[in-house]
Amino acid sequence: MNAIGVDVGGTKIAAGVVTPEGELLNEVRYPTANTPEGVVEGIARAVAEAGDGYEAGGVCLAVPGLILAQENKVIFSPNLHAIEGIPLKDELEPEIGLPLTIENDANAAAWGEFRFGAGSEIEHLVFVTLGTGVGGGVISHGVLLRGAQGAGGELGHVTIQANGPRCKCGNRGCLEALASGSAIQRRGREVARERPDSGLGRLAAERGVGGEDVSRLAREGDEAAISVLEEAGMWLGVGVAGFVNIFNPEMVAVGGGAAEAGELLLKSARREVHLRARSPSRDLVEVRTATLGPESGVLGAAALARDPSGEYVLGP
Amino acid sequence: MNAIGVDVGGTKIAAGVVTPEGELLNEVRYPTANTPEGVVEGIARAVAEAGDGYEAGGVCLAVPGLILAQENKVIFSPNLHAIEGIPLKDELEPEIGLPLTIENDANAAAWGEFRFGAGSEIEHLVFVTLGTGVGGGVISHGVLLRGAQGAGGELGHVTIQANGPRCKCGNRGCLEALASGSAIQRRGREVARERPDSGLGRLAAERGVGGEDVSRLAREGDEAAISVLEEAGMWLGVGVAGFVNIFNPEMVAVGGGAAEAGELLLKSARREVHLRARSPSRDLVEVRTATLGPESGVLGAAALARDPSGEYVLGP
Repeated sequence: MNAIGVDVGGTKIAAGVVTPEGELLNEVRYPTANTPEGVVEGIARAVAEAGDGYEAGGVCLAVPGLILAQENKVIFSPNLHAIEGIPLKDELEPEIGLPLTIENDANAAAWGEFRFGAGSEIEHLVFVTLGTGVGGGVISHGVLLRGAQGAGGELGHVTIQANGPRCKCGNRGCLEALASGSAIQRRGREVARERPDSGLGRLAAERGVGGEDVSRLAREGDEAAISVLEEAGMWLGVGVAGFVNIFNPEMVAVGGGAAEAGELLLKSARREVHLRARSPSRDLVEVRTATLGPESGVLGAAALARDPSGEYVLGP
Repeated sequence: MNAIGVDVGGTKIAAGVVTPEGELLNEVRYPTANTPEGVVEGIARAVAEAGDGYEAGGVCLAVPGLILAQENKVIFSPNLHAIEGIPLKDELEPEIGLPLTIENDANAAAWGEFRFGAGSEIEHLVFVTLGTGVGGGVISHGVLLRGAQGAGGELGHVTIQANGPRCKCGNRGCLEALASGSAIQRRGREVARERPDSGLGRLAAERGVGGEDVSRLAREGDEAAISVLEEAGMWLGVGVAGFVNIFNPEMVAVGGGAAEAGELLLKSARREVHLRARSPSRDLVEVRTATLGPESGVLGAAALARDPSGEYVLGP
């Protein structure tokens, strides 16, 4: 039986039908409205269109922010305030006519990598997603670690430098404050000022430097841009080393936009993991890029859809 | 059916028979020998004496250090080098005549708290043990997180201050380097020098200050000693906040010798958890002392003993 996954993002809603083998059969995309009614309507319409003509056993919404699993409710979503506190399950389930669950988007993406992507052959996977922020999800002994309320897997807000830079969450020295796309942009701009003759410095004289500029210039060989990515990769490695010691995973898969910097970031992260994580965990773990890319949200959500008995529609 | 738990420590071997209700029926203790043969003989003797006259379905050894679970072998044990690399299962099982497994001591203590102690009513428990070092164990969704090789749960070597003080493991800024009994002793001695007129300072003029002295003086109201514990508690809180964000647990239970400082340490830790962990996880979690005390090793080990089919003898 197929399942429908919905990736509810700050700018777009994507819904797709997914087979038990992880094939994405039919995907539709809509821009996200900015009213509660608009978002609910957009989700219902996306599910109806994507599912039209396909049999499916359940629907799951992957949503950015903090979820209260037992209430199937989003309690905090910094990029999608419109859905905070809305009883999405109660409003959508009757209309859609399929069992509906709600999960954190990073947890869903982690589960997608575990079922259909980089981690499909293993039982212990840590997934870190580097975008504007840093999210994560953990599969240990084949189980997605949701925690008591479904709020687990917040890997971006683990402190790695207690007196470090301020994070958007209000604290200091979170992994997100040091290794996210935003952190890369911030350091890129600082380094551009320090090194005006570098590629980064010359670009900054023309316009604001973004995180993608840092990655592009680094690939073109600009030393200043490379140093920014190496530093971010080092911080990523400090965080990942902790996850390796905690979970003894077979793999740490890094996804999200900033992961497109690829090896430039990961080489530096691996060096730090090797320094800071302990044997035998550090010798086992493979630190690599995720493979599902932008479809990980829809695929992961579909993989977490449940049937009326609570079992995953696409299997465990 | 009962099980036999063995707590193999650097100075003593304790073995006991434990019922499915967590009652410790018969415990024997021997000093730990410092040769491989001596340790193996000591374990065999302790198990034979403890189990004499009792029926039991399996034995588990809780051992300090890094375990390779699939080989039932200790690969690194800083306080018990004699057992490193010894095929304990192969040597002991025929002699004991019961199925034998080997687990990390902190994981066993965590499982003991989960089955019979502070966490007996919950499904998501993080256990941190503060002794000379810092160990840990995590139960998530009712499952002990061993990781791929049985080396998971190394909570003491998560980096919380990347450029912090040197840890015995060789890195900088591990939780262990900032919140262990050794860290409390180190800071106690530093503060004694800075404040020679404090209780801590006056004691240091007579003899070397130990971690327990700091706890005792703090209970007696010495401001300098209190400040040392508050600082250690703050660092403990930085680490625990990360665990709360990662695991969304119902409880964090703190055990081990240094936890005897109790509320002086935990109050400060809770303050930091409230600052650094996110809602809803931080609102749910209870940070408290563990309840099993020094028997947690034997009880936890017994609870992890397996029967020939691989099931826990004392139940899940």
